[in-house]
Amino acid sequence: MRVGFLQFFPKFALGEDDKTKNIEKIRGFLEGTKADIIVLPELFATGYLFESRDELVRLAETPDGPTVSALKDLSKEFNTALVGTVAERAGDDIFNTCYAVSGGEVLGTYRKVHLFDREKAMFAAGDTPFPVIDVKGARVGLMICFDWIFPEVARVLALEGAQILCAPSNLVLPYCPAAMVTRCIENHVFAVLANRVGMERTGDIELEFVGMSEIVAPNGDILARAGREEEMLQVAEIDPADADDKMVTSTNDVLADRRPEFYRKLCE
Amino acid sequence: MRVGFLQFFPKFALGEDDKTKNIEKIRGFLEGTKADIIVLPELFATGYLFESRDELVRLAETPDGPTVSALKDLSKEFNTALVGTVAERAGDDIFNTCYAVSGGEVLGTYRKVHLFDREKAMFAAGDTPFPVIDVKGARVGLMICFDWIFPEVARVLALEGAQILCAPSNLVLPYCPAAMVTRCIENHVFAVLANRVGMERTGDIELEFVGMSEIVAPNGDILARAGREEEMLQVAEIDPADADDKMVTSTNDVLADRRPEFYRKLCE
Repeated sequence: MRVGFLQFFPKFALGEDDKTKNIEKIRGFLEGTKADIIVLPELFATGYLFESRDELVRLAETPDGPTVSALKDLSKEFNTALVGTVAERAGDDIFNTCYAVSGGEVLGTYRKVHLFDREKAMFAAGDTPFPVIDVKGARVGLMICFDWIFPEVARVLALEGAQILCAPSNLVLPYCPAAMVTRCIENHVFAVLANRVGMERTGDIELEFVGMSEIVAPNGDILARAGREEEMLQVAEIDPADADDKMVTSTNDVLADRRPEFYRKLCE
Repeated sequence: MRVGFLQFFPKFALGEDDKTKNIEKIRGFLEGTKADIIVLPELFATGYLFESRDELVRLAETPDGPTVSALKDLSKEFNTALVGTVAERAGDDIFNTCYAVSGGEVLGTYRKVHLFDREKAMFAAGDTPFPVIDVKGARVGLMICFDWIFPEVARVLALEGAQILCAPSNLVLPYCPAAMVTRCIENHVFAVLANRVGMERTGDIELEFVGMSEIVAPNGDILARAGREEEMLQVAEIDPADADDKMVTSTNDVLADRRPEFYRKLCE
């Protein structure tokens, strides 16, 4: 199976035209790429640094909106499952929602549970569990950006059977790419981290995104990693079943060796 | 507060004399050192690779045995708390037990919960929770070596209030020093990892220990790190209270932002 990330610089969307330009940019990267799953950055169509919640509300979409429709079309056109997040309007709430789309269908969604910084003033926190979904025969766990700092997320996904963690991201802290290697080793899973690059500004706030998208193997090997500034699509050939072997020594299974009777504090 | 690690090559103990030599070697390193807490490698007095369980039984001690007594004496003599593990005999069981000793007293103990590889045939698995103990005004969490691969351990210790994770180790896998940086960032705690160096052999088994002992700050900064082969004692000046600030942004507290309602799977 061929899995990959697209690291790029989405244009901040002032309206629908800009969203379309971002989608067309993604299409350009997908042309000629052979891949089963491609992970896109978080909020790949709108950009990230909204001036106000009003602006976010204006750019957000219901699940039948143009961005999810475009993802469906692209997934069919290129025969590639796509994973990325969209600002989702649900009643009065806006969620930062990950869509996994394949063959023109939405296979699963996940609303970001752990909101980062200013997102707390913009988005509602996710109200659904961390999902593991079947994508072309692989079990894919969905997480988003800041979820990385909570080891519980990758762990729950691994315990639910995920073989590949897909993590659309807009990272500004520099720690995640290294932490993701630890997440892979401790859970013996693959990870595809798709981050964006570039800068955004609004008022006094300026953010620089750190790139370093990567594909990591269950033993922590970095199969591909992008730089901090470049736009690129990278793909690696993996066998998701490698993640089913949880042994780090001939007698140590990283999941079966857990001692939940001593972990009660985590669920309080 | 000055905290540090001693990384050295313990002589494998064929009997009590060798244990004494290892203690004397530790004494040599402590001479002239000013430190509040020093973490020693796992099983610093006996070495690690026992030929058989019988050999381990012969070298193991009850808590009033010579090794814990020596630790108490050293802690008083050098006015330094010491943390390290001892093969503890308790009835028919042998535990790999961490002792935290200060001013001639045992402040707390912890029996290794997650056993590595061949340890499963040698030791009984720990039957006590991960402890946080007061050492000279700092809250110290005890963990041992392979516990590193289970993110639950550092997390439980942080939730129990640990400011400094002390991890006596005999690492043979190379992943822990980097993973410990992630543990510090995700929990905003200090860590002192004390590993041994050198090789041990028994029968067809040969182990090389990877060194790379380290002192890590809550933001992931490596305050000190040893090489893979050298014997050395290193100390860093820290303020344990820095670990009480759990904010990674002005609105994100790495512990308070947890969403335990989504973590139930971890406690099943």
